[in-house]
Amino acid sequence: MRVGIQGDVGSFSEEAARRLLGNEISVVGFRRFEDVFAAVARRELDGCVVPLENSIAGSVHTNYDLMLKYHFRICREYYLRVCHHLIVFPGVDLKDIRTVISHPVALAQCERFLGMHPEWEVVATYDTSGSVREVMEKNLRDCAAIAGRRAAECFGGEILVSNIQDSVENYTRFVFLRLEPTGETGDKVSLVFRLANVPGTLFRALGVFAQRGVNLLKIESRPLKDRPWEYLFYVDLAGGLGEDKVAEAVEELQGVCEYIEVLGCYSGIGMMDTGEGRL
Amino acid sequence: MRVGIQGDVGSFSEEAARRLLGNEISVVGFRRFEDVFAAVARRELDGCVVPLENSIAGSVHTNYDLMLKYHFRICREYYLRVCHHLIVFPGVDLKDIRTVISHPVALAQCERFLGMHPEWEVVATYDTSGSVREVMEKNLRDCAAIAGRRAAECFGGEILVSNIQDSVENYTRFVFLRLEPTGETGDKVSLVFRLANVPGTLFRALGVFAQRGVNLLKIESRPLKDRPWEYLFYVDLAGGLGEDKVAEAVEELQGVCEYIEVLGCYSGIGMMDTGEGRL
Repeated sequence: MRVGIQGDVGSFSEEAARRLLGNEISVVGFRRFEDVFAAVARRELDGCVVPLENSIAGSVHTNYDLMLKYHFRICREYYLRVCHHLIVFPGVDLKDIRTVISHPVALAQCERFLGMHPEWEVVATYDTSGSVREVMEKNLRDCAAIAGRRAAECFGGEILVSNIQDSVENYTRFVFLRLEPTGETGDKVSLVFRLANVPGTLFRALGVFAQRGVNLLKIESRPLKDRPWEYLFYVDLAGGLGEDKVAEAVEELQGVCEYIEVLGCYSGIGMMDTGEGRL
Repeated sequence: MRVGIQGDVGSFSEEAARRLLGNEISVVGFRRFEDVFAAVARRELDGCVVPLENSIAGSVHTNYDLMLKYHFRICREYYLRVCHHLIVFPGVDLKDIRTVISHPVALAQCERFLGMHPEWEVVATYDTSGSVREVMEKNLRDCAAIAGRRAAECFGGEILVSNIQDSVENYTRFVFLRLEPTGETGDKVSLVFRLANVPGTLFRALGVFAQRGVNLLKIESRPLKDRPWEYLFYVDLAGGLGEDKVAEAVEELQGVCEYIEVLGCYSGIGMMDTGEGRL
């Protein structure tokens, strides 16, 4: 199975892909999300694993847009806890370090730890796993990288200090997407629908779920730039399309809204243990 | 008036602060959002200007969290269109450029343009405006920076190619926050409230608005990590607290939810013209 990700080996996307689909898959890295989706659409890949939301940074609208553009379906989801580690060439000690390199977002998420070492020079790089690669390939003994565990494993780096991120509640929801139409198995449904912004329309839309006792797991509005006062709504439901009340609610919703698309029916696994402590 | 921002002079935050509050303000830059909020709480500043959401990257949950932690109030908002420009030392020509530097997020948002110049080496830096500063201070004639117009103005750089970002729909919503309690003037209200995830609770909560014909401008759910099945909801309403129907709806909502906080009542200006074309 060939699965596309944005980024390189050792990245959090690769880690998510392997946790979702196992170690036997072949992971193909692309520079941009658009390139990943296009390759799946050309059937060069069996699917892709992309982030949909992060607990600190919010929804990744780019990927919601690409899901709609390409009509891909969510087949699985995985909540990856984002843990950053200080990674060095094996044997290097804290006192040897003069420079720390990583992606600026990772650096920003480890400011408390970095603040305890004002003697280090902090340098921004293009990506987290690439920083580990650089330390290892260039045999750097006075430079540490900040990245995930997978990057250390990929390039043979040693984790000198683990879990150095400021917030323990930093997790990213990844989804496995395919071209195939969604099935009815699973206990979670993701929808996107559009409503005219007439007062009470959203209320009526949500009524189709409330009346049947169907729980919402997520709701997010997104204004449409080219249609003033109209919105897209992203909604996740607790329940699969195999359940009558869910299927009926989705059908009734089609009469309420101007446009609806079922993004997938899949197993909602909640926030999983990534082997680095429960969320 | 002293106003805090995250980042440096020439950044998009500074541009937003000046558009919100005029050119007479004194803008103080901090490295982290947390530092900005803490300085306002210590009354070292009169307020701060921070981003709440971006059309591509989603809501900035960090700042929603900090607003709740410090009980700041939204006084104004501004939608800043994020436009990236290729900025050089004055007189430098396209053919002189060998290297392009900027923050990785800005580089990623200009991939189409950069793809037309494969001969350029692209190097990641810590921030957009700092890249312009580097080009100017080091007198670099073979290096261009990617940043906003404000950075070019601050450091005397020349915009060689304007609007090189891939997406024209890249805008960030900035808010001006203060310690003072919210007033009743304005035509937009931002709320945060918590609901137990009993089926239909959200439906009931939204009913208080629907029954009175109060429009929602934004709704977003956010799961609470330490309270399974409970959510925070961020909601923006069309209408001010000075209007009876809005005030009554907010009051009734207090009986429906477990916790509610009015984040502000202010003038909702919609997406404003930034002088670089309407959204």
